[in-house]
Amino acid sequence: MTAYSATVTVRLKEGVLDPEAETTERALERLGFELESLSSADQFDIELDAADEETAHERVREMTERLLANPTLHDYEVSVEQR
Amino acid sequence: MTAYSATVTVRLKEGVLDPEAETTERALERLGFELESLSSADQFDIELDAADEETAHERVREMTERLLANPTLHDYEVSVEQR
Repeated sequence: MTAYSATVTVRLKEGVLDPEAETTERALERLGFELESLSSADQFDIELDAADEETAHERVREMTERLLANPTLHDYEVSVEQR
Repeated sequence: MTAYSATVTVRLKEGVLDPEAETTERALERLGFELESLSSADQFDIELDAADEETAHERVREMTERLLANPTLHDYEVSVEQR
């Protein structure tokens, strides 16, 4: 078995309202900052053992589909590297 | 002015408890997944105009210190690239 580090980035799909990000953007503007846009994402860093990189990537993809992301609302990216 | 995209990743400092991540890790284990560890981070994607990359980086660093992160609890990373 080999040790891998995976990063999962979960974002709301295009068109889904993100009130938290909108509130954050307005607060920054009230503080005097000028910005075009702000969006937010959740990031999960997972350490796991697997037979190979492909297996590690598949396992983390399953974790994401089962728990970390809601496929109806979210898009996600998974990246894996050997530790 | 030039258009830049910045990514801010905000994590709890080492040693600060992350009950949400612990709950997520246990839930994954209950679903039958085996993992060494799981930690979470907030990611902000900001689009802004600035005179140059250094100014853009400094501006986003200030946004982070003022609002996006709590310097007592969080570590953060800022990366900037031209759009």
